[in-house]
Amino acid sequence: MTRPGIDADRLWGDMMALGGITEPDRPYTRRAFSPMFAAGRAFLAERMRDAGLSVRIDAAGNLIGRIEGAIPGLPAIAMGSHSDTVPSGGRFDGIAGVIAALEVARAIAEAGAPLRHPLEVIDFLAEEPSDFGISCIGSRGMTGRLSAEMLAATAPSGHSLADGISDVGGDPDRLDEAVRTDIGAFLELHIEQGPVLEAEGIDIGIVTAIAGIRRIEIEFAGQAAHAGTVPMHLRRDAGYAGALAMIAVRERAEAMAAAGLGYVVATVGIVDVRPGGSNVVPGRCRLVVDARSDVLALIDAFMEGLRADCVAVAAKAKVELAGFRTLSDGVPAICAPALRQAIGAAADGLGLSAVDIASGAGHDCAFLAAICPAAMIFIPCLRGMSHTPEEYATEAQLAAGTATLLETVLALDGDG
Amino acid sequence: MTRPGIDADRLWGDMMALGGITEPDRPYTRRAFSPMFAAGRAFLAERMRDAGLSVRIDAAGNLIGRIEGAIPGLPAIAMGSHSDTVPSGGRFDGIAGVIAALEVARAIAEAGAPLRHPLEVIDFLAEEPSDFGISCIGSRGMTGRLSAEMLAATAPSGHSLADGISDVGGDPDRLDEAVRTDIGAFLELHIEQGPVLEAEGIDIGIVTAIAGIRRIEIEFAGQAAHAGTVPMHLRRDAGYAGALAMIAVRERAEAMAAAGLGYVVATVGIVDVRPGGSNVVPGRCRLVVDARSDVLALIDAFMEGLRADCVAVAAKAKVELAGFRTLSDGVPAICAPALRQAIGAAADGLGLSAVDIASGAGHDCAFLAAICPAAMIFIPCLRGMSHTPEEYATEAQLAAGTATLLETVLALDGDG
Repeated sequence: MTRPGIDADRLWGDMMALGGITEPDRPYTRRAFSPMFAAGRAFLAERMRDAGLSVRIDAAGNLIGRIEGAIPGLPAIAMGSHSDTVPSGGRFDGIAGVIAALEVARAIAEAGAPLRHPLEVIDFLAEEPSDFGISCIGSRGMTGRLSAEMLAATAPSGHSLADGISDVGGDPDRLDEAVRTDIGAFLELHIEQGPVLEAEGIDIGIVTAIAGIRRIEIEFAGQAAHAGTVPMHLRRDAGYAGALAMIAVRERAEAMAAAGLGYVVATVGIVDVRPGGSNVVPGRCRLVVDARSDVLALIDAFMEGLRADCVAVAAKAKVELAGFRTLSDGVPAICAPALRQAIGAAADGLGLSAVDIASGAGHDCAFLAAICPAAMIFIPCLRGMSHTPEEYATEAQLAAGTATLLETVLALDGDG
Repeated sequence: MTRPGIDADRLWGDMMALGGITEPDRPYTRRAFSPMFAAGRAFLAERMRDAGLSVRIDAAGNLIGRIEGAIPGLPAIAMGSHSDTVPSGGRFDGIAGVIAALEVARAIAEAGAPLRHPLEVIDFLAEEPSDFGISCIGSRGMTGRLSAEMLAATAPSGHSLADGISDVGGDPDRLDEAVRTDIGAFLELHIEQGPVLEAEGIDIGIVTAIAGIRRIEIEFAGQAAHAGTVPMHLRRDAGYAGALAMIAVRERAEAMAAAGLGYVVATVGIVDVRPGGSNVVPGRCRLVVDARSDVLALIDAFMEGLRADCVAVAAKAKVELAGFRTLSDGVPAICAPALRQAIGAAADGLGLSAVDIASGAGHDCAFLAAICPAAMIFIPCLRGMSHTPEEYATEAQLAAGTATLLETVLALDGDG
């Protein structure tokens, strides 16, 4: 028996190999429920078996590799992320966490002595929004948050999500069996998908919380009119109202972020101005606002302030605030302090720099946090890019994160 | 011989009859070059012949009815507008000016003595943008402004504009013959298409100038990014830049309009934010700005100021001003002071209220102003609406405008 250690070359080789399983005409694409996704999972299952893990698909369609622990009855230490991608996505988002978990399990298996706890490597089903329009399907299923309504959601093909789960080897009729009460800790390694770690030259991000995301739709209704014949002071220009509201979103989020009470970002990603003719004063404007924070009260405060802004904006532009509607609402998930501490100690022991960071993106870990202590390890990525073929982390960055994951697992196994 | 007078009921009856010639499933639609357009022109030609006018189609495809004058060699007094509509348009835009001209010619013909000058009623071909993407085709042709490039423009059907002109009875190979040097005055009656006359309770608008229209395309290029992971202060949000520029357009135009140096309006009618996902910080934003004034220097000043605004906006949003490009540029057309004076005297003689007003919309008259003294009579329309089936002017409003047109023609004939 030797002390477990990761093999950085093998780790990188598996990353590149899984990345290579892509729709050839639009790298890197391995969408959940697609044949390429199945090929990726076959690759992962084979690697897990090669390392001595027992492999199964749970009722929610998650691929799980497991090594039993030395002491019966202890809860499992689980690691993982997702192997599916967005269309024309990258090779690291999700995948890094699955391959890192595989490497950690492999290193432990090779060392010749099992942990005290069972160890699991999980590839959660369909973290990215798939054709069914629902994200985090597998982690929702594992935490009892996949509703009958979601199972009935249909893809453009006409297939239901229940069909999709069956197709990947799950059992939508027995979803209860996927819900876990035997996980003692969950750890997810992930690329940051943002620019902070790289900009600050930090090796490891210790995630404090996964931001809650509230999406709202704002609609202004004015009066479409001839762009030449209606004097400025008589206009009821919904586009003008929309522009004022966009500024309000930006300035309010900037001010709240600068106040330092928590992580706050807000984005207007969808702007729809109608009728959309160069010679027509817009009569309608629709905005979709995405606001995120690791502190729920800050999301509430942002939205309360923005609603007041929109009432003022509508009055200024002489239009009607025709809608201010919540499209979706997810609360922040707090990462377990004990796990964060373990990650910090592991990084410190490895001589790596680490910093607390909020995750602005959603992750499977946010669901796992509802059933067990859960935490995340972020590694830097090139210029914060994600969901693009240019998405990148270096072999050294990935190895540093994976080593931190391994040391954290070993520490948790020793403590728990 | 009696003094000519208009017949308001006959005038209104012809308006409604021509309006009734519409695609039945989307009133009021009589698009240039369509079978419905041909039916409308057949109606007009028949009414002209019934009134004793000689009828022809010129080489540019304009329908022209004419009564010769009593004194050989005098230039013609011409009146007219256009009978084509936008899809799902109204019964008055353009049509009112053609029918009013017909009624004036009919009233003069009935009175039993010709004018000293020849009198013409003109239905200009395709004032509205047709499938060929070019407006004011007939008035361009009559004034020598229909280029070979325009003639080669093709509709989605594959037909060229030259084909279209042939189809309506014109002769694109002999366009020179359409260019007129024998018109002494041109008068166009039109609905205001704006809210000013109705709001102020005025019967007649004496158009001072037809606004020049400059359209520019502004593009901002930032960096598309994850809406959750990029802190506010690191964003390069092109949508934010776009919103700031939209505010600049509005506030600059408002300030210039309020300064009272001329008519100024500016509109952002097209807003295109990419990639357009709720969870993506916009990387590109494209705006189309339509700015109009009756004073060319004010358009220049507006655009110069706006360009400086956009440079400042791009710096503030940390994006690039990737484009500030003129898409089209039309200079203001000044209405002839002598004709304006005649219109004012005619209205006054009829006991009608009148006010000077700039035309923010383009009209065939803007082209005619390049070859002869030209002017326009505006009549009020319901809530300023145009290019919609709700477009409306009352029988009394139309009759007042037509009577003003008749009295102006009679005065010009006496003076000229």
